[in-house]
Amino acid sequence: MFKEVTTLLPQEDIIYLGDTARIPYGTRSAQTIIKYSMKNTKFLLSRGIKLLVVACNTSSAVSLPHLQHGNAIPILGVIEPGARKAAQVTKNKKVGVIGTEATLRSRAYEDSIHGIDHQIKVVGQPCPLFVPLVEEGWVDDQVTYLTAQSYLYPLQEEKIDTLVLGCTHYPLLKDVISEIMGDRVYLVNSAMETAEEVKKVLEGKDLANKEARERLYTFYVTDNADRFIKVGERFLGTELRGVREINW
Amino acid sequence: MFKEVTTLLPQEDIIYLGDTARIPYGTRSAQTIIKYSMKNTKFLLSRGIKLLVVACNTSSAVSLPHLQHGNAIPILGVIEPGARKAAQVTKNKKVGVIGTEATLRSRAYEDSIHGIDHQIKVVGQPCPLFVPLVEEGWVDDQVTYLTAQSYLYPLQEEKIDTLVLGCTHYPLLKDVISEIMGDRVYLVNSAMETAEEVKKVLEGKDLANKEARERLYTFYVTDNADRFIKVGERFLGTELRGVREINW
Repeated sequence: MFKEVTTLLPQEDIIYLGDTARIPYGTRSAQTIIKYSMKNTKFLLSRGIKLLVVACNTSSAVSLPHLQHGNAIPILGVIEPGARKAAQVTKNKKVGVIGTEATLRSRAYEDSIHGIDHQIKVVGQPCPLFVPLVEEGWVDDQVTYLTAQSYLYPLQEEKIDTLVLGCTHYPLLKDVISEIMGDRVYLVNSAMETAEEVKKVLEGKDLANKEARERLYTFYVTDNADRFIKVGERFLGTELRGVREINW
Repeated sequence: MFKEVTTLLPQEDIIYLGDTARIPYGTRSAQTIIKYSMKNTKFLLSRGIKLLVVACNTSSAVSLPHLQHGNAIPILGVIEPGARKAAQVTKNKKVGVIGTEATLRSRAYEDSIHGIDHQIKVVGQPCPLFVPLVEEGWVDDQVTYLTAQSYLYPLQEEKIDTLVLGCTHYPLLKDVISEIMGDRVYLVNSAMETAEEVKKVLEGKDLANKEARERLYTFYVTDNADRFIKVGERFLGTELRGVREINW
């Protein structure tokens, strides 16, 4: 998401928070995900942000209305933009959604897609091993290929023509996923769709920065900055500097 | 660990705490692991326990002295018993240790083994995918076999004759690990060794329960009891009842 937003909005400052002391959220209960997400939101609001993107699919799926409630700035999740894209591109009205256990359990993508077109069949599949595989850096390993084959088989059987990559980590596996699903299945990158939405909202509300000056990126993590840098650099393909640990 | 302790000490009540709101510990910093472990310890001490086993290898490796400090009851970790067994069984003085990133980084097994015999060569290998594979239930899957082959290859190259399964989840993979390492490599189950140690300490301090009565097992988790029950029943091979969620 960081990459997508900074590419599309190169003139905006970014304050990024990674809750590395309490991830992964995908296996937690809704109650705990909401609690953690509210704490993260409070911290970012205290930094004087003008717009908040909940870049984690699990947090978006489970806690977005709770985070938006009573807050004056725009708070965007990744579900709605991804769902909209999926509903728009599917031709046979069969959409697959892959994500964490909590994202699938919430049925957020399904509800959102059905809000647009209730005739679309939505087939969900949790893929718990994808995040650890990406974090291990095994993005083009045979182990990852076999794991993906196993998870994606039910979606192939359903003959979906559109697949939502419903977790921050999954776009890093798009080559493997695409190889298994075939060229005819459109892969929706929720992060990319959300970055477009951020741009639209900033421009619509006249909040976009028009000054041409050096951008400022600030990274906060709640634990283990070293590991965050190692994994983060793999995501971004560039050096990560100035990561600060905050202690709650 | 629960299984090993209840098998060896069937007359003892057990109070179990699973910190399911904040696991996995294996990728966290030492500072955070200590903080979480102290909170867990405080909770269990408040239940009036007579002995505490830190059943998590990561927590034992990183935080045990901090937990023991100033506490009157015996607090046992899993590292020392596992290390002792490894030092005792190795013939060629080459011991492998597999565990989480944090356990390996702490060098706790290495230090403990060298405290017994400094001539033993200790070769460590973190295996971050083993926990999610076990939690997914893929204990005899080809994916798990290939993953184990990749992780264990450096240990085979070192010609170790003893391998410490240094994480709660790894004994569930012992068939796969044994198939790869071969019959001549002795697999040390730290949980089993620790249960023996618990028995010894309870008897040595005259703390063992001698009454023949129905045992009481109480399970607390900090989040998502449903998932804990699902995964826990796979570990124990028996039904898990009366799991209570506590909200910190």
